[in-house]
Amino acid sequence: MILQSHPLDIAHGRIEMSHGAGGRAMVQLIHQLFAQAFDNPWLAQHSDAAVLPALQERLVLTCDAHVVSPLFFNGGDIGSLAVHGTINDLAMLGARPLYLTASFILEEGLPLRDLKRIADSMAAAARAAGVAVVTGDTKVVEKGKGDGVFISTSGLGSVRAGIDLSASRVQPGDCILLSGSIGEHGIAVLSQREHLDFDTPIASDSAALHALVAAMLDSGARLRVLRDPTRGGLAATLNEIAQQAGVGMMLQEAAIPVQPGVEAACEFLGLDPLNIANEGKLVAICAWEDADQLLQAMREHPLGKHAAIIGKVVEDAHCFVQMTGKLGGRRVIDWLAGEQLPRIC
Amino acid sequence: MILQSHPLDIAHGRIEMSHGAGGRAMVQLIHQLFAQAFDNPWLAQHSDAAVLPALQERLVLTCDAHVVSPLFFNGGDIGSLAVHGTINDLAMLGARPLYLTASFILEEGLPLRDLKRIADSMAAAARAAGVAVVTGDTKVVEKGKGDGVFISTSGLGSVRAGIDLSASRVQPGDCILLSGSIGEHGIAVLSQREHLDFDTPIASDSAALHALVAAMLDSGARLRVLRDPTRGGLAATLNEIAQQAGVGMMLQEAAIPVQPGVEAACEFLGLDPLNIANEGKLVAICAWEDADQLLQAMREHPLGKHAAIIGKVVEDAHCFVQMTGKLGGRRVIDWLAGEQLPRIC
Repeated sequence: MILQSHPLDIAHGRIEMSHGAGGRAMVQLIHQLFAQAFDNPWLAQHSDAAVLPALQERLVLTCDAHVVSPLFFNGGDIGSLAVHGTINDLAMLGARPLYLTASFILEEGLPLRDLKRIADSMAAAARAAGVAVVTGDTKVVEKGKGDGVFISTSGLGSVRAGIDLSASRVQPGDCILLSGSIGEHGIAVLSQREHLDFDTPIASDSAALHALVAAMLDSGARLRVLRDPTRGGLAATLNEIAQQAGVGMMLQEAAIPVQPGVEAACEFLGLDPLNIANEGKLVAICAWEDADQLLQAMREHPLGKHAAIIGKVVEDAHCFVQMTGKLGGRRVIDWLAGEQLPRIC
Repeated sequence: MILQSHPLDIAHGRIEMSHGAGGRAMVQLIHQLFAQAFDNPWLAQHSDAAVLPALQERLVLTCDAHVVSPLFFNGGDIGSLAVHGTINDLAMLGARPLYLTASFILEEGLPLRDLKRIADSMAAAARAAGVAVVTGDTKVVEKGKGDGVFISTSGLGSVRAGIDLSASRVQPGDCILLSGSIGEHGIAVLSQREHLDFDTPIASDSAALHALVAAMLDSGARLRVLRDPTRGGLAATLNEIAQQAGVGMMLQEAAIPVQPGVEAACEFLGLDPLNIANEGKLVAICAWEDADQLLQAMREHPLGKHAAIIGKVVEDAHCFVQMTGKLGGRRVIDWLAGEQLPRIC
C-alpha cells in the first residue's frame, strides 16, 4: 500500500543510492520495475529465495557475470545477453533450462528508463525460452564505482539420464561441427562501442540454443561434447577442448562460415574471426559415422541452418589445433595470451 | 601444461584486462587462484556449468550481489560475507544449503594478493558450512569502472517436506524472537570505511545460520517465518513481514539486545540500531505457546545464545510496528525511506 502511493518516475528518474539501501525506495524499485517485468509465481513468494518443486533428474547449475559495454547494441542488450548466455551454459551440458536468478549492480545516476528497457528485454528473452527469473537482488554503487549496470545471472536446469557431454569423451576420428557463422557478436558490440559504421551493419547473434541442442540430442547422433564459443572465440573453445581431451584438431578454413560483413570488418580492424566472441553459436563433436545425421538435424533448426562440418579430431600429443587455409598451407590456431576485445559479454 | 609454465605472481601481480578476456591469462587465473581455493569434484568438471546429483526434495534457489566497501573489515571480508549471506537466504526458508556459484567482477589493477585472500576466505567459509562452490565466472572491467571486487553468488539448497516458512502464516498472538544483538555488521563496516576508532572495536556478526535454523526446526516449535535482518536492519525486516502478513507488531525495546559498543557508536553517529544491517542474526516468529521451547533451542546454539523474545504479533489494519521504550512510551518503528548506510553488503 505504501508502494502504490509513490509511483516510480520511469521516464525521468535515475537510480539513487537509496534504491540499494533496503528501505522503501528499494522495495518500490523491485515491485514497480523488476517484479512487473519478471512476474511469476516464484517471485511472488516475496522471499530472498524461491522454493521450487523437486526434480527427478540430475541438476545443472551455472552462473555468469555480464559487463558488456555498451549496454545496448545491434541485436541485443545486456539483459537479453545475460539470459541467452546463462541458458546456453546449461544447454551445452544437454540440460533443459528451467530457472534463472538475476543480481543487478546499478551505478548511481543510471536512467530508470534504461533499467526498465533492460529488465523488459531480459524478461522477454526468458519468456521466449520458457524459463522464469525466480529470484533476484539489487545493489547500488556510487557514480564512478560501476558502469551503468552489471548483471550476474545463475541458471538451474535438469538433464536426462544417459546424457553425458564432456570433453573427456572426445576421441581421434570424431567430427567437429559448428552451428553457423562466427564473429557477429564481438563485431556488433565493438562497432557500437567504437562508433564504427560498416556498410553492412552487423547484428549480434545472441540467442538461446537449448532448442537446437534438444533437436541435436533427439537426432540419435553420438554427441561427445558441446561448447559455445564465447569469449576468446572458436580458437579458444577448440583449444580448451583439445587440451581437456588430450587430442589435436585439424580444421578446414573454407568450411568455417563467416559473414562477408564480419570478414570485411575483421580485415579492416586487423582481427581474426576465430578469436571473436559468439553468443548464439555452438561447437559439437560427435562420432564421425553420425556427423551427417547430426548436421542434418542442426540444419533443420533455424539456429543451425548454416551448420557445417569444419574439421576432425586427430591424435596429437601437443594438443595442437591446426587449420588448412583456403589456399592450402597449414597453420597452428593458438588461443590468445591476452585481451583482444574487452567487455564483450 | 601451458598453465604450469606461467605461474601467477600473486605477491606482486595485479588484475589486467586480459584476465577477463577468455584467453590463456584468464584460464591461468582460474586454475591457479580460484580452482586452488575452491577445489571440489564439480569444479573439476571444467565446464561452464556443474552437473549435480538429483535431489528428492523441493529446491530452494537464491542469489545475491555483494558490493561491500571496504573489501576487508573487522570480522570478515566480501568473500566470507558473500558465502554467509547466500547460505542465510536459503536457511531462512528452512533449506539445507548445498551448492554455491560465484561470479567475480574485478577492477583492473586489483592486487592479486587481495583477490587470493578473498577467494581463500570464501572457500574457508563455504567449507566450514559444508557447501561447495561448484561453478564460477570472472569478468574484468577497466580501472574506474568498478571498485576492486564485486561478487555475485547464488545458492541452491533443498527443503524437507512439511517445512513451510512464510510471512503469510504469521497471525496475531504469535511471538517474535531475535537470535542475538543487533547492529554489529553495519557499524563494523562503517567504522572501517570512515576510520572511526571506537573504544571497543566492533566486529561484524557475519555468520552462516543454517545450523541454528536446523536446531530450531528440530525443536518442534511451530515456526511461521524466519528472516535475516540485513540491509535496512530489524526495522525493515519486521515492517516487511507485517505488511506481507497484514498484521501489526508490538516490541519491547528493553528486550532487544544491543552491545554497549554498538549503542555508543550509534549514539555518536546519530543512528538507530534498529536500522543497521546484521549478517549473522535472524528473526523468528512462532506460535506463542511454543516460544519458550524455541527460545531454549536457540540459546543452546552458539549463534543463538543471546536470543530473546522481543515482542508479539497483534491485529492492526495499518500494519504498524510499534515499540514500547525502556522508559515507557510507545513509538511507531518505520522503515527508512532512503539510504542510511550504503555499500554495507
